Amino acid sequence: MRLRSYELPTHVGEQVTVAGWIQSIRRLAKVTFVVVRDGWGTIQIVVASEARLAPLDGLELESVVEVTGTVVGEPQLELHAPAFAVIAPVTTPVPVLLSKKQLDVPLPTLLDHGGVTTRHPTRRAVFRTAAAAMRGFRRTLDGLAFTEIQSPKLVGGATEGGANVFTVDYFGTPAYLAQSPQLYKQTMVGVYERVYEVGPVFRAEPHDTARHINQYTSLDVELGFIASHTDVMAVLVSVLRGMLDEVQASCAAELALLGATLPEVPACVPELHFIDAQAMLGEAEPDLSPEGERTIGAWARDSHASEFVFVVGYPMVKRPFYTHPDPERPAHSRSFDLLFRGTELVTGGQRLHRHADYLAALAARGISAAPLASYLEVFASGMPPHGGFAIGLERFVMQLLGLTNIRLATLFPRDLTRLSP
Amino acid sequence: MRLRSYELPTHVGEQVTVAGWIQSIRRLAKVTFVVVRDGWGTIQIVVASEARLAPLDGLELESVVEVTGTVVGEPQLELHAPAFAVIAPVTTPVPVLLSKKQLDVPLPTLLDHGGVTTRHPTRRAVFRTAAAAMRGFRRTLDGLAFTEIQSPKLVGGATEGGANVFTVDYFGTPAYLAQSPQLYKQTMVGVYERVYEVGPVFRAEPHDTARHINQYTSLDVELGFIASHTDVMAVLVSVLRGMLDEVQASCAAELALLGATLPEVPACVPELHFIDAQAMLGEAEPDLSPEGERTIGAWARDSHASEFVFVVGYPMVKRPFYTHPDPERPAHSRSFDLLFRGTELVTGGQRLHRHADYLAALAARGISAAPLASYLEVFASGMPPHGGFAIGLERFVMQLLGLTNIRLATLFPRDLTRLSP
Repeated sequence: MRLRSYELPTHVGEQVTVAGWIQSIRRLAKVTFVVVRDGWGTIQIVVASEARLAPLDGLELESVVEVTGTVVGEPQLELHAPAFAVIAPVTTPVPVLLSKKQLDVPLPTLLDHGGVTTRHPTRRAVFRTAAAAMRGFRRTLDGLAFTEIQSPKLVGGATEGGANVFTVDYFGTPAYLAQSPQLYKQTMVGVYERVYEVGPVFRAEPHDTARHINQYTSLDVELGFIASHTDVMAVLVSVLRGMLDEVQASCAAELALLGATLPEVPACVPELHFIDAQAMLGEAEPDLSPEGERTIGAWARDSHASEFVFVVGYPMVKRPFYTHPDPERPAHSRSFDLLFRGTELVTGGQRLHRHADYLAALAARGISAAPLASYLEVFASGMPPHGGFAIGLERFVMQLLGLTNIRLATLFPRDLTRLSP
Repeated sequence: MRLRSYELPTHVGEQVTVAGWIQSIRRLAKVTFVVVRDGWGTIQIVVASEARLAPLDGLELESVVEVTGTVVGEPQLELHAPAFAVIAPVTTPVPVLLSKKQLDVPLPTLLDHGGVTTRHPTRRAVFRTAAAAMRGFRRTLDGLAFTEIQSPKLVGGATEGGANVFTVDYFGTPAYLAQSPQLYKQTMVGVYERVYEVGPVFRAEPHDTARHINQYTSLDVELGFIASHTDVMAVLVSVLRGMLDEVQASCAAELALLGATLPEVPACVPELHFIDAQAMLGEAEPDLSPEGERTIGAWARDSHASEFVFVVGYPMVKRPFYTHPDPERPAHSRSFDLLFRGTELVTGGQRLHRHADYLAALAARGISAAPLASYLEVFASGMPPHGGFAIGLERFVMQLLGLTNIRLATLFPRDLTRLSP
């Protein structure tokens, strides 16, 4: 019976069998250290005789082996007196050297060989963190009586205003890849009140930056019977806390390896109105500049000891047609951005819920109501005040782990020039 | 503080506030029954005076209301002496009548107005069951040390052989919608050993049948260090049990409403080799006919008291290039189908893991290796014996609930003629 690396601590003194990939071989004068990596960690094998190494003769790193040996616990966990059996030999060197502590290759090389480079402990730690974040997201929302949905990714019309959609040939008819599940999740508030979705979204944005990719994983939430965007923000704070708790609980080794420290979510996340933010920054544009966001992040950190800060009340002109205005300041919205360490992490807000308000909002923006007939029908059929938010999983992981490029937080990124692997 | 319908049983005798949609109004001589539906259930409101109904004057069904009243527990849970407040009035009749016990409308009407018709208790029960199935799937696999991944849905080449892919205009270059995460999940066995993914897949199959849709949700699993397909089948049985347990635990009311009885997963699911199945059926084709599958399902039920049956060893000619042959019968594969009540529910098997075997398999089938270079590189870099399976969520829900058309198990189905809503 083969054990996994994380099971060894309870088997000290026993003879066990492990299996995995040969990550490194280090020959010293009298002893050779072989590090075997399995799906969860690494195991150091101490080989005191050349004869025991014979099965590995002529093999390259990353060969898959099974090893039987004795677990020794002092000074560190090791396997002694090993017998190696080769499961799958590697006979030509792998494309990227994985045996060093850091994976020191240029980004394009790293991505070109993503199927192999993700094996490196520093790389796989990133996507294990992403898995924990998704688990924490769902678990929190399941606990708050949300229902998970799966919405279509092929749509007949562009959902959020028209630009930057990918076109698909759908049996001879043009279709589009969904830019978000926005309209579907709102619709489902009429059914389940509280819904979420984890799924791919597609943006045909021709941006070549460290923060843009053309497919990402959107963590979408929508809930009904709210008093205002404040109720949405409260759910978001619970969700964030649930995601961070799950990452902390299940990825301690990964965080240590990456040198990442998780932020605390304060009991009360500071909040700044857009108008006050503009005043603080001396800015007049209807959106905040990246420098402005950094300044607000520093203010939250210094004045409120918080790495998170809400900016609320963005101007209506910068928000999509379904945004609910602030009745007391109609040029401003009941929407928010959540900044984390000075960068936008989440966008959300209250939506319109009255049919007549939708017709007026569409007319004011010159958007035709006809392609939205199915969506509008839902509002004519009774919808409560509702709102929601979306978290980009890759951006969340990137900012949490301090990665310098969103491609490093994406398993197989898609960008202007990259469709493979 | 507004209570949800499922919270009322612990508040008998108290004055409470609930909210939701007016599902039906039934006027008798001395009393009127108003049924309010919230996101989880329904609440019967007993109105003994016309004055209390005044706020609903002129309103249509599906208006959103808040009701304050006293919870009475006998003979059934009701709200008495209600005060209604209208949250969102509906002023024109909704497109489909939702107040009857059954939603008796033709399928196209039901789908055309899906945003509204899914509100009907019999419809929303279906997707709540789907959510529970996903939850059980993930929970089981998390417990078995699997890691969740998110793979790209836009790919540079067709993954599984070429036909039936949707083409996307990717910044002027043709790209394709992924037909499955097969190649990516195999690649990730080299990283995490055990992975799963829940996500959309796209099949441009021009079939207009009750069992085909062009986007569906695939529950994909892949695991390494297996001895054969038998290990994969054991994981599948655990996963199925986990999915059914979760549906049973969290959707009892939904199952009762739909008149569905969940199957038992027997301790030992019966297994039939393809060759024996052919002999039993007197069939000679390299695939089983739908009637043949029904006959095998009946055999499993009658001879093994099982609603599930594995057929193993399908001919290699009918399986994709990455299929592992049975070393003892090389014309047959180490693959399986799981039949449920006489219909295929899951397909899986062991995959090739040696680089040379891939090159030979591709050459034998006349498939060019060049577009698969990134994938093949992973096998040249050391891969253990591995295998996996995929469950179509909508098909699972359809068969579990005895629905007659897969479109009834799909939130917003996409087919040959349907791209909306």
